[in-house]
Amino acid sequence: MKLVPFKNVSITGGFWYEKQKINRENTLPIEYQQCKDTGRLDAWKLDWKPGMPNQPHVYWDSDVAKWIEAVGYSLAQNPDPELEKLADEVIQWMADAQQPDGYLNTHFTVVEPDKRWTNLRDLHELYCAGHLMEAAVAYYQGTGKRTLLDTLEKYADYIATVFGTGENQKRGIPGHEEIELALVRLAETTGKKKYLELASYFIEERGRQPHYFDVERKARGDESPYRLGGPDILPYAYNQSHLPVREQTTAEGHAVRACYLYTGMASLARETKDESLAKACKTLWNNITTKRMYVHGGIGSSRFGERFSFDYDLPNEDAYAETCAAISLVFFARNMLRLEKNADYANVLENTLYNGVISGISMDGKQFFYDNILASHPKYHKYSGQKSPQRQDWFGCACCPPNIARLIASISDYLYTQSDDTLWIHLFAEANANITLNNTNVNLTSKTQYPWQETIDYTVNPDAEKSFTIAIRLPDWCDNPSILVNQEAIDLEKVNQNGYAYITRTWKKGDKIHITFPMPVKRVYAHPSVRQNCGKVAIKRGPILYCLEECDNGKDLAALRLPPIAEFEVKTSPESIGSVPMLVAPALRRDPSPWNGKLYSTSTPKYKSAQLVAVPYFLWANRGPGEMTIWINE
Amino acid sequence: MKLVPFKNVSITGGFWYEKQKINRENTLPIEYQQCKDTGRLDAWKLDWKPGMPNQPHVYWDSDVAKWIEAVGYSLAQNPDPELEKLADEVIQWMADAQQPDGYLNTHFTVVEPDKRWTNLRDLHELYCAGHLMEAAVAYYQGTGKRTLLDTLEKYADYIATVFGTGENQKRGIPGHEEIELALVRLAETTGKKKYLELASYFIEERGRQPHYFDVERKARGDESPYRLGGPDILPYAYNQSHLPVREQTTAEGHAVRACYLYTGMASLARETKDESLAKACKTLWNNITTKRMYVHGGIGSSRFGERFSFDYDLPNEDAYAETCAAISLVFFARNMLRLEKNADYANVLENTLYNGVISGISMDGKQFFYDNILASHPKYHKYSGQKSPQRQDWFGCACCPPNIARLIASISDYLYTQSDDTLWIHLFAEANANITLNNTNVNLTSKTQYPWQETIDYTVNPDAEKSFTIAIRLPDWCDNPSILVNQEAIDLEKVNQNGYAYITRTWKKGDKIHITFPMPVKRVYAHPSVRQNCGKVAIKRGPILYCLEECDNGKDLAALRLPPIAEFEVKTSPESIGSVPMLVAPALRRDPSPWNGKLYSTSTPKYKSAQLVAVPYFLWANRGPGEMTIWINE
Repeated sequence: MKLVPFKNVSITGGFWYEKQKINRENTLPIEYQQCKDTGRLDAWKLDWKPGMPNQPHVYWDSDVAKWIEAVGYSLAQNPDPELEKLADEVIQWMADAQQPDGYLNTHFTVVEPDKRWTNLRDLHELYCAGHLMEAAVAYYQGTGKRTLLDTLEKYADYIATVFGTGENQKRGIPGHEEIELALVRLAETTGKKKYLELASYFIEERGRQPHYFDVERKARGDESPYRLGGPDILPYAYNQSHLPVREQTTAEGHAVRACYLYTGMASLARETKDESLAKACKTLWNNITTKRMYVHGGIGSSRFGERFSFDYDLPNEDAYAETCAAISLVFFARNMLRLEKNADYANVLENTLYNGVISGISMDGKQFFYDNILASHPKYHKYSGQKSPQRQDWFGCACCPPNIARLIASISDYLYTQSDDTLWIHLFAEANANITLNNTNVNLTSKTQYPWQETIDYTVNPDAEKSFTIAIRLPDWCDNPSILVNQEAIDLEKVNQNGYAYITRTWKKGDKIHITFPMPVKRVYAHPSVRQNCGKVAIKRGPILYCLEECDNGKDLAALRLPPIAEFEVKTSPESIGSVPMLVAPALRRDPSPWNGKLYSTSTPKYKSAQLVAVPYFLWANRGPGEMTIWINE
Repeated sequence: MKLVPFKNVSITGGFWYEKQKINRENTLPIEYQQCKDTGRLDAWKLDWKPGMPNQPHVYWDSDVAKWIEAVGYSLAQNPDPELEKLADEVIQWMADAQQPDGYLNTHFTVVEPDKRWTNLRDLHELYCAGHLMEAAVAYYQGTGKRTLLDTLEKYADYIATVFGTGENQKRGIPGHEEIELALVRLAETTGKKKYLELASYFIEERGRQPHYFDVERKARGDESPYRLGGPDILPYAYNQSHLPVREQTTAEGHAVRACYLYTGMASLARETKDESLAKACKTLWNNITTKRMYVHGGIGSSRFGERFSFDYDLPNEDAYAETCAAISLVFFARNMLRLEKNADYANVLENTLYNGVISGISMDGKQFFYDNILASHPKYHKYSGQKSPQRQDWFGCACCPPNIARLIASISDYLYTQSDDTLWIHLFAEANANITLNNTNVNLTSKTQYPWQETIDYTVNPDAEKSFTIAIRLPDWCDNPSILVNQEAIDLEKVNQNGYAYITRTWKKGDKIHITFPMPVKRVYAHPSVRQNCGKVAIKRGPILYCLEECDNGKDLAALRLPPIAEFEVKTSPESIGSVPMLVAPALRRDPSPWNGKLYSTSTPKYKSAQLVAVPYFLWANRGPGEMTIWINE
C-alpha cells in the first residue's frame, strides 16, 4: 500500500469540507495570531536578548512548525496567496535562522547557546527538529516550494553527524519522540535512504545501556535520579526508553510520545521491510486497542504524566486522553494499515478521528480541549486539580491546537491508499480523486452525508476501460453493509478480506458504486475488567459516539437509567450544534424523594419515567458549562 | 448534658476492650518510638542547632502532644508505671522548654526564634498550642498530675496577652484551628472562664476584614496573593476564614480544620449558652451530614487540599477522607449532642467511629491509613498521585496515628452523658461505670458482643433505690429494637424522644436492662445526586459497613453484581481478620467471553452465577494488596 499523491485528492463537500473550511477561516488565522502574540513567530528572528519578554521556550518551534504543516496541506487544495505569504515569511525567518553547521532551534540559539544537545531527555530539541521536518515535507507537497525542505535536509544531515554509534558521536535519543516518523517522511519525500538510517538509529538506540539519559544527566552534573512519571513506575517508561523497542510489549508512559515512536517504528518497518519491527508494532497496537483505549479512541488515561496507566484502567471524569494522543493514535493506525491490509486499523482510526480527536476543537474552530474527558461535572475540576471542563482559547503548552489543525487540513490523505492495481477506501467522504491504477488515470468522485447518513455514492471514471480493484472498508460498527455496483449487489461475504470488500472488475467511465451502511443506534459495553464502566452503556450511531449533556437532560445525569429494552428515535439536534442526528429514548430517573433530604437510604430505589437525549460526543461543551457523560447507567 | 467524669467509666470487655489493649500494647509504644526516632521527642530538649539532623518541624509538637493525651486517657483506667514514667519525662522537657513569658513551641524556639507569630496561616503555631492544652487536660484527668496543665495554663495566659482586640494586640487567628476547642476544654477542666473568652475571640475574629492573613502576609513582605486550595475557590475557605463563622453555611476547605473549628464553636456555644452560634453549628452539621459525608462517615472528599468539595461529590477510589477528618467529625458530633439531645448526632458518631475512623488503623494497631478510600485497585495509586493503598508504618506528617490512638484510649468517654437525673447511653460497649444520679451513686455494668451481636445487657446498681431516667439511643440503622427492663418490654413508641428511649422509674440494685437491636443485613443507597454511586449499593449489618475484597471475591470486583433479590447469609470471617461476621450472597459476574479479547462489544452482557463475600470495611487491607470496593453494582 502506498499513499495517493497528496495533491490528487480533495474534499469537495460534506462533513470534512465544513471542518476544513472552519479550519482555514477560523483556526489557522487564530493560531497564527496566537503564535504572533505569544512571541513564537518573532522568536525566529533570533533577536531575543536576556531581559526581554517572550523568551523562546524549548517547544515553541514545534507549534509554529505544525502551523506551517497545516498551511502546507491547506494550500494544496485551497490556494490562498495571503496565507501563503504569511507562511513564506515565517519560512524565510526559519531558513535565515539556520546556523552555519545546519543547526536550527530558536531556544538553543538565543537563550542557551551553550546548552545545545545537553538535555535531550527534557528539552524537546529533537522533537522540534522532527516537527520542522514534517512542516517542510507538507509545505513542499502543498506548494512545491523547497526552501524549508532544503533547510531541514541540511539540519537532518547535521543531526546525522552529531548522533550515531560512530566515534565522536553522541549516542543520544530524543526524550520526546517525533523525529523518527519525520525522518521516514523526509526519506519518502526526498527518496534519500540516509534519513531512514538516522531514523533507524534513533529507534534502535532506545532503551540501550548505559542509558543515554543517565550519561547526559551526569554530564550536566545532575546526580538526582530520574523520577518523572510518579512513584513505583520504571522512570524511563515515561519516554519509552526503559527497554529496547523490540522488547516493549505494553504501551507505556506519555501517550503522545509513545504513539509518535510507534508510528516511527511502523513506518520504518514498512520502508525497510523489517518484519520483526512490524511484529513489535503489532504487539504494542494490540495492547493499546484491546486494553488501554477509551471508547472515544482517546489514549493516555492518567493525568499524572499524561500517560498510559495499566490494562483496563479507563477513568472517565479523570480521563486525560490528550487531543495530541488521539492524533498520535491516528498516525499509528494509518501506518499499521500501510503495513497490513486489515480494516482493524482503519476502524480504530475512524473511531478515534470522529470522536476523541475532533472533540478537541469547538464547532467554530476557535477553542480547544487539551484533555478529552468522558464525563464532566462543572464543579469537579475546581477540586480535582483538573483543567477546566470548558474549551480554551489557547494553552501555554500549545501542542494540541496546531496538531488538530494539521490533521484536519490533511484529512484527504486518509481516505485512500493504493497499490499498482488496487485502490483501498478507508474513510468515507465527499471527495474528488485522481489515481493511477494499472497505468491508467482514474477519476473517483463521491457524494455522501456520512457520518450522518448511511449512503455513499462513488462514480468511477477511468480514462479508459480497465481492470483494477477497489477495496472498500466494511466498518466494524456495521452489521449489514450493502454495496451495489451499477445497481447490482455485491456478495460481500465472498469478497471480504480482513474487513475490506475487494471488487475487481473492468471499470469504465461512469460506473457507480452505491454503498449503504445501515446505522441503527447501538449500545456499546466495555469489557468487564474496566471497573469504571461495569453496569454502564455507551451509545453509538454509525461511527459517531454519543453523550448526554445537562442542557438536554437536566442535572444529575448519573440518576438517569437507560432500560435495556428502550428504543431510540433519531431526531434532529438543535441548530446550535449543527442540526445533526440526535438520539432520544424513554428512560428512567431515580426518584430522590425516598431519601427525604438525607444522603443515604435503605429504601429500595424507585424511578420516574424520563427522556434521555444524546448528542454526538465530539460536539459537547459547545453550549455552555454543564454535566456530560458518555457512559450511562443501564 | 454533661460528661461523666472520665475516671468513672471503664471498658471491661468486648470490641473496645480489644482495641484499647492493642492500642496500649502496640500503638502507643510504636508511636513513642517513632517520635523518638524522628527527633520529635528530642526536639523538646531545645538543643537543636542549625546543621544538625531532625530540625524540629512546625507541627511536631502536636504529634507528641497527642501521644501524651492518649497516654493520659490510657493511664486513667490502665495504670502502667513504665508508660507513665516515659510520659512524665517528656512532660518535664516540655515544662522546661517553656520560655519565661510562657511561650512553648520547639520550632519557633530553636529554629526560627525571630519568626514567632509571623505566619499563623501556615505554620501551625496555635494548632500546636491547642494540642498541648488537650494533652495537659487529659494527663491531668488521667493521672491527677498538674505539671503540664500548669505549663499550658501559663502558655494560654501568655497567648491571651498577644492576641485580642486590645491596643497592641495582634488580631490573629490560627490557620489550622484546634486551639478553640482546646481552650474550651481547658476552661471546663480548670473552671476558668477567661479561656472561654480567648476561645470566643479566636472564633469570632475569623473571617473579619481586613483579613489578618493578608495583614501578616504583607508584614512578612510577601506580596503574592494566597492561592492554597486550587483555582477558582475562595482561597480563605481552605481554612474557614472566608466569612465570619456565623455566616458560614456550608462546610468548606480542609476538613480537619473545619470540624475542629466547628467543634470549638459547638462547645463554646454550650458553655456560653449562645443559641445563635449553636444554630450556625447546626447549619454546618446539616450541610456535612446530608450533602458531604461518605457512607463510612469520612469527610473531605478532595485530595487537592484535603478538603470538602461540593454537595454530593463523593468519589470513591479518589476519596481523601483523612482519618483525622473522621475523628474531627466524631468530636463535632459529640459536642453537637451535648448541645441538643438528638440521636442524629450519636448515629453519625457511631457510624463514623466504627467505619471511617477505625479503618485508619490496622488490626494489630501497628500500621495506619492517612486517607480512607472507598474503593481501591492496587495498581491505581501508581498512576493517580494517590498515596499507597497499603497501610503505612508512619507518615512524615504524622497527625493521624496519634489522633486515632487518643480517640481509642478515650472511647469510654463517649458511651454516656448525664444530667442530674438522667443518664444517656449513646454507644454500646462492655463497661463499668459509676454515675451520680439524683445524688446517688449508680453503678452500671454492661455485657455485650456489640457490634457483632444484637444484644446488650445492663445491670443497674444504685447505692439505694432511686428514681432517675436512663435514656437509651435507638440506633437509626435498627428497625425493630426491643428493650426489656427486668424482662418486661418497654413500649418504645411511647418513650422515644428524638431517638432515645427515656426509661424513668425507681431503680433498685440488680435491675436488668436487656436490649436487642436486630441486625439484618441492609442495603444502603446513596442519594441519586451522588453521581459516583447511582446504580450501586452498599451493605451494612448493624453499625458495621461492609466491603468486598479481592482476596475473598477474585479480581474485577466491579464485574460482580448483587441482584436486588439476593439474600445474605451471615458466616464467620477468616481468623486472619478476627473471625467476625462475614456476609455471603449469591451474585452474578459479568461474563467476559462475548468481548472475545476486545475492549468494547455491542452484545448484550451475560452473567455467570457467582458468590459475593463481604467483610467489615474497617478490616480491609489487613490481608495484603488487592482490589476493594464498598459500593457494589446492583
